[in-house]
Amino acid sequence: MNEMLRNPKAVSNDMVTRGPLPGSRKRIVNGVPFREVQLSGGEPAVLLYDTSGPYTDEAAEIDIARGLGARRAQWISARGDVESYSGRERLPQDDGLKAGEVLGVPQFARGLRQPLRAKPGRNVTQLHYARQGLVTEEMRFVAARENLGRAKLRDGNSFGAAIPDEISPEFVRDEIARGRAILPANINHPETEPMIIGRNFLTKVNANIGNSIVTSGVAEEVEKLVWAIRWGADTVMDLSTGRHIHSIREWIIRNSPVPIGTVPIYQALEKVGGIAEELTWEIYRDTLIEQCEQGVDYFTVHAGVRLAHVPLTADRVTGIVSRGGSILAKWCLAHHRENFLYTHFEEICELLKQYDVSFSLGDGLRPGSTADANDAAQFAELETLGELNRIAQRHDVQVMIEGPGHVPMHKIKENMDRQLKACDEAPFYTLGPLTTDVAPGYDHITSAIGAAMIGWFGTAMLCYVTPKEHLGLPDRDDVKEGVIAYKIAAHAADLAKGHPAARLWDDAMSKARFEFRWRDQFALALDPETAQAYHDETLPAEGAKIAHFCSMCGPKFCSMKISQEVRDAARGANDRMSSEEIRAAMAQKAEEFRQHGGEIYLPKDAAE
Amino acid sequence: MNEMLRNPKAVSNDMVTRGPLPGSRKRIVNGVPFREVQLSGGEPAVLLYDTSGPYTDEAAEIDIARGLGARRAQWISARGDVESYSGRERLPQDDGLKAGEVLGVPQFARGLRQPLRAKPGRNVTQLHYARQGLVTEEMRFVAARENLGRAKLRDGNSFGAAIPDEISPEFVRDEIARGRAILPANINHPETEPMIIGRNFLTKVNANIGNSIVTSGVAEEVEKLVWAIRWGADTVMDLSTGRHIHSIREWIIRNSPVPIGTVPIYQALEKVGGIAEELTWEIYRDTLIEQCEQGVDYFTVHAGVRLAHVPLTADRVTGIVSRGGSILAKWCLAHHRENFLYTHFEEICELLKQYDVSFSLGDGLRPGSTADANDAAQFAELETLGELNRIAQRHDVQVMIEGPGHVPMHKIKENMDRQLKACDEAPFYTLGPLTTDVAPGYDHITSAIGAAMIGWFGTAMLCYVTPKEHLGLPDRDDVKEGVIAYKIAAHAADLAKGHPAARLWDDAMSKARFEFRWRDQFALALDPETAQAYHDETLPAEGAKIAHFCSMCGPKFCSMKISQEVRDAARGANDRMSSEEIRAAMAQKAEEFRQHGGEIYLPKDAAE
Repeated sequence: MNEMLRNPKAVSNDMVTRGPLPGSRKRIVNGVPFREVQLSGGEPAVLLYDTSGPYTDEAAEIDIARGLGARRAQWISARGDVESYSGRERLPQDDGLKAGEVLGVPQFARGLRQPLRAKPGRNVTQLHYARQGLVTEEMRFVAARENLGRAKLRDGNSFGAAIPDEISPEFVRDEIARGRAILPANINHPETEPMIIGRNFLTKVNANIGNSIVTSGVAEEVEKLVWAIRWGADTVMDLSTGRHIHSIREWIIRNSPVPIGTVPIYQALEKVGGIAEELTWEIYRDTLIEQCEQGVDYFTVHAGVRLAHVPLTADRVTGIVSRGGSILAKWCLAHHRENFLYTHFEEICELLKQYDVSFSLGDGLRPGSTADANDAAQFAELETLGELNRIAQRHDVQVMIEGPGHVPMHKIKENMDRQLKACDEAPFYTLGPLTTDVAPGYDHITSAIGAAMIGWFGTAMLCYVTPKEHLGLPDRDDVKEGVIAYKIAAHAADLAKGHPAARLWDDAMSKARFEFRWRDQFALALDPETAQAYHDETLPAEGAKIAHFCSMCGPKFCSMKISQEVRDAARGANDRMSSEEIRAAMAQKAEEFRQHGGEIYLPKDAAE
Repeated sequence: MNEMLRNPKAVSNDMVTRGPLPGSRKRIVNGVPFREVQLSGGEPAVLLYDTSGPYTDEAAEIDIARGLGARRAQWISARGDVESYSGRERLPQDDGLKAGEVLGVPQFARGLRQPLRAKPGRNVTQLHYARQGLVTEEMRFVAARENLGRAKLRDGNSFGAAIPDEISPEFVRDEIARGRAILPANINHPETEPMIIGRNFLTKVNANIGNSIVTSGVAEEVEKLVWAIRWGADTVMDLSTGRHIHSIREWIIRNSPVPIGTVPIYQALEKVGGIAEELTWEIYRDTLIEQCEQGVDYFTVHAGVRLAHVPLTADRVTGIVSRGGSILAKWCLAHHRENFLYTHFEEICELLKQYDVSFSLGDGLRPGSTADANDAAQFAELETLGELNRIAQRHDVQVMIEGPGHVPMHKIKENMDRQLKACDEAPFYTLGPLTTDVAPGYDHITSAIGAAMIGWFGTAMLCYVTPKEHLGLPDRDDVKEGVIAYKIAAHAADLAKGHPAARLWDDAMSKARFEFRWRDQFALALDPETAQAYHDETLPAEGAKIAHFCSMCGPKFCSMKISQEVRDAARGANDRMSSEEIRAAMAQKAEEFRQHGGEIYLPKDAAE
């Protein structure tokens, strides 16, 4: 047993990125954290939605061996419907260990945490509460968080969504009750800052992380999470396979302020040595319990890969490209039996409602190439997902629906339209979609195009794609590139849908740009570090930060400088005129010209 | 006078990137060059559209001091309608030199080239020929180039475009004659490989280059061009300002296989010391002649910035952000007179038709922020551009129309619809549009989203945006990033419009992916170098190039490997079955199960 195992506090916190983004600071408003950007020139500060948790709060004390504070613990216990219990016995195979093998990573050991579950006969999902008319603390938190800076700036096309001017706690409750939004919040993950996924809220982004074959250490695994949420990931999926996944997951969950999703079939497959045919319902169910007790907030469950759908993939260019989908297809054909996730679906519901784990109904038959988009296999599965959603809704279990994949632009909207219809407006959660197959190395871009569009059409959460997709394992830079590309897609979608708060950010940036407030532009940027670094590559001097031009055109060709001079010319010497007065002055000078300027050339068409 | 000036052959060719992309080679079919990707596994070779010119042809001899071969010279002279003449006298101020100052860069000196112009009374534009019913050699070349690999793969939504199954030379002629496409081809730039810009052809990409303040050498300037076309730029705009622009432009044009565009007002402004008010029609006209004689293929002309439009920009968040637009707005207000480009527009037409220089009618009032998108100023100018297009059409001068800029997604389609209507379907040429303002450092992505969409809607050419937009001057890496992002956007647009050839490339890639032909995937990639480098970061070994899995999932979780096993299982031992037979076999096994498998769980809804 090494030093780490004896003394978990020896785990280094130095691996974890701390501190706010340049030019920003943490601002807590009624308990809800925001990123505050203070501006110069008398401009009001801008508040931005903040996924990064306490790691960007200079006042917060972080010790990953202790984990984050259990912000929701009091809320959960106050509802009086949960009980702690001894929990499932931990097994060596949870970590992929053979009998006698020793754990190679330190164990997370904050006290002797006992898991919670619903008291007998109770249902502890946010959906159940919502349908009972209860506005939970989580819903209040979400309302304050989503409501941020909303003004009357409404200008968009939301394709029939129902985005209100103000987000009230009651609106949050109602959207959850309708099954149009989910609030992923396992009672065993009280460390989360509640967030909501639904078409009438801000578009969210998920980032996937996973252990490498050689795990360098638990702090490095926590840092993957911290890094992803620093740049804006709203949820994180832990797609680890192989050894130590139980133990590493514990470190991740205990240090995560965002909901954590998993694909339990991956761990179940590890438990049967990677042989799909040997999977059983019992092993899978045991894995679900294991992860429910740890605090996973949502599970991808590929219950829609039905035996009868598998032949529909025979003519595809790229067959089945979902890992979970291919595992279950193989199981189905090998046994000539229906998918056990489908046949045991109600039992899964019974389990999930005891912990409030949400379903992310997996699209195991999603297209892996633009050629296979919107085919019979994909849409057959979507219909099944709709059927499963209705079953889960009867159990008051929260559901979102996963979507493709590789889809050319002209076939994207059909995905959204069919999903809304087949799945009764349950939140859609799509991977991309990638709009072409020809650019490996740039699939964050091929897919950001599709993601922005489907987000606009109504997708509630976008699963990121990194530049390494199809090629290799993403490193730190790839994760950042992927998250940033998807934050762009999500924000572009919010702008186009007409989310009232979305435009405030753009307008603050544009105003700073026109007024040459360079430092404000950097501070407001999605990525302040890159923005300043790029600026400084060409004009590194400190004076350039207040220059009324930039390196692109130089002072002589700076359109915004000239444009300001045009306004000043119209305005006359030193007067302070309103923009209406400037417009009037400019128009008057133009009118004088029209009346007196005899030498205007009028082309023949102009008079027609 | 330095060594370079005495002996231009001393200019180093080593600066210029040579050789094909990895895994590709130049293939000339009936005189038209393509990028040929040879594949393994008995797959047919794939031909791709190739903008890169002789630089990627291992058989070509390149000497930038001699320039490229004059491929079109014979075609031009054979038409019998041009004459050579002594040309305009070259002036020191053409290069921004004061009297007595010495040129600081070597002069291009291939023989004593005399410019060509139309014989008196003749019009030498491709549009004029098209309307006379003449199918030129340039049109034949374009037809062969665009027709590439067209099959009956039609699947798209082209929003009313008229994309045929086969591109015939007659179709090219007809599209040009209607003013729906242009073939930029100055008779003084015979080095070009003809290309076409129009809604019914492949979507094109422009890259901007420009000299730095300190010019390191003419070979470096030529390399900027070669680098941009290597990655796929279909045209290049030389936006140089400052000193030596005449001389450097000569080097660029003589070595360019793609059309070159400029914004002549930039050079004219240099000639008046950067003071917009001192611009005159005479100085501008002289600059046009200078550039017509050099061989510039299209001019951005901001003739739509009318005096009466300027006041419409007074309330904008970001005023006027086009350099040319702001220069002309300032001129108009300073003189209280109508824009001299507007009043002299017919004289410009008279000039351009003598050389076949195309108009790119500039959108000087394009929005510089999402807040200003689709406003009165922008659309007032668009109406004027429509009026100017009709005038140019009467002169048989080719025209494309420039478009925005910064536009949130829900306002993009209106731009396209209005442009088609106002400008009688003249080709649209847009900058982006950027779909949000908040991501400086990533504007190749914010704008690739908008570019893909507007390309799908019908924009004929997309002007690239690099990651440094709004921040600094792009370097070599930024130019590549920008071109690649825009090739993705253009190709995604072609796929969605249903261009028959577009899907062949995607399908070849997807097939290679499903069959684990790694080297074929790299070779087919838009950027083979990056694709292979990313793959090798995780799995560098040579054996990994033939592995039937990759680093993302490993062999146990590889969905495509499992999916192939599923097919094999259905297929039985070693039989060679067609996909229809496989489907039948899989379906039969599933059917057997449906008939005999008593233990299927049927949820209540399933029977409804």
